[in-house]
Amino acid sequence: MTDLADRPLAADSVGLLEGLTTTRSIRRYADEPIPDGALRDILFAATRAPSGSNRQNFRFIVLTDGPVATEAKAIIGRTARQAWDHKRANEGYDEGSGATPDSPKARMARSMERYVEEIEKVPALVLPCLIRHRRPTSTEGASVYPACQNLLLAARALGYGGVLTIWHALVEDELRQLLELPDEAAIAATVTLGKPEGNHGPVRRVPLDQLVYSGTWGDAPEWAVDPPGTRFTRAGPPPAPAS
Amino acid sequence: MTDLADRPLAADSVGLLEGLTTTRSIRRYADEPIPDGALRDILFAATRAPSGSNRQNFRFIVLTDGPVATEAKAIIGRTARQAWDHKRANEGYDEGSGATPDSPKARMARSMERYVEEIEKVPALVLPCLIRHRRPTSTEGASVYPACQNLLLAARALGYGGVLTIWHALVEDELRQLLELPDEAAIAATVTLGKPEGNHGPVRRVPLDQLVYSGTWGDAPEWAVDPPGTRFTRAGPPPAPAS
Repeated sequence: MTDLADRPLAADSVGLLEGLTTTRSIRRYADEPIPDGALRDILFAATRAPSGSNRQNFRFIVLTDGPVATEAKAIIGRTARQAWDHKRANEGYDEGSGATPDSPKARMARSMERYVEEIEKVPALVLPCLIRHRRPTSTEGASVYPACQNLLLAARALGYGGVLTIWHALVEDELRQLLELPDEAAIAATVTLGKPEGNHGPVRRVPLDQLVYSGTWGDAPEWAVDPPGTRFTRAGPPPAPAS
Repeated sequence: MTDLADRPLAADSVGLLEGLTTTRSIRRYADEPIPDGALRDILFAATRAPSGSNRQNFRFIVLTDGPVATEAKAIIGRTARQAWDHKRANEGYDEGSGATPDSPKARMARSMERYVEEIEKVPALVLPCLIRHRRPTSTEGASVYPACQNLLLAARALGYGGVLTIWHALVEDELRQLLELPDEAAIAATVTLGKPEGNHGPVRRVPLDQLVYSGTWGDAPEWAVDPPGTRFTRAGPPPAPAS
């Protein structure tokens, strides 16, 4: 691996603003590993993100193959399938427009179904962690989620893709034991990465003037105008049917 | 402003991986406003970030000029100066190597001193907010800090820069009242943006093998090797002197 010390980061083929505005969550991966050089570049970019007082209190556990990775993926697989079954039932994914195969709701359900069914096969499972220096707070994520976003954007830059989840939430104790986490480290996210299978599709959001205000709450500035070609969606998850 | 509806996002001059690995916190700004078109592009990119179930429960209050913005900047200025004075004394910025004018510690202190002294003059003060749909958690930031990172990276893409802070923490009630925040909205960060004055300087971190593990905690993978030319620093804040 000494050659990586001499190897610069990959050359860019995607622009910065382009990458920021077109990177979306990828849940379907080709069955091929991510080469070490790409993992190096992705994790290097992740760890260039800012953190409070530049404490760099983020750590990334990158699980690809071998017995520990296999066991961690199995733990995440079990809990992900349970959590998705629960969400599917509670958030009405099979009701209303969900009964129509081509509706956004039904497509989302199919995508999630396949994702959780095959999650043990993801090329890389990454567990970003935060080393706490004080009691948990709702703003502590400011020191780890910017790095998670860099991770996902860097994956995109190198031809990969991923999605940030909190699948670990119900099995954190089991993972902590397997991975020998020290008491002060908390798992902040569960990220899966791989080569996208199929197309990316557009990023969809609500109109910009619903998300950006100037002055008091709700007052959109005149410049909050979506650029031409913007694709929209309602804020998720899909609403339960009225009936 | 109708012209912005016909105006595409700015063309890229920075690559995606390049932007991710070289964007650093900017605390010194030229005294010039950010044009509406640049603000639109920056906020559009911020709001393309992922959020849990694509709920898009992030909102951005962008404060530039006018009475509400002026008052918000004054509130942040007062608390930032108090918080920095406290931090400077408690974390030993003026002791040990801090007494040597060219030390990293002394340079950091000078940069922070000027930043908080002039914070009322920042071209744009942005308060990213999170609309909660459940009680506060330590992972809720996964739905707002990725968007904050997109905001900072998009600023870079357009020739601007900024820094993410939590200056609002001690004055959130005052800001909530001024900005008429609804009960379910929490201020997640205080970001300042502007045109950088002077050079950016390198991004410095600890070596990659201290931040990335493979399998159990502390086991760095063979590929965790910094690319040539990487600049390093200890994890901040500067340690207090031993004496």
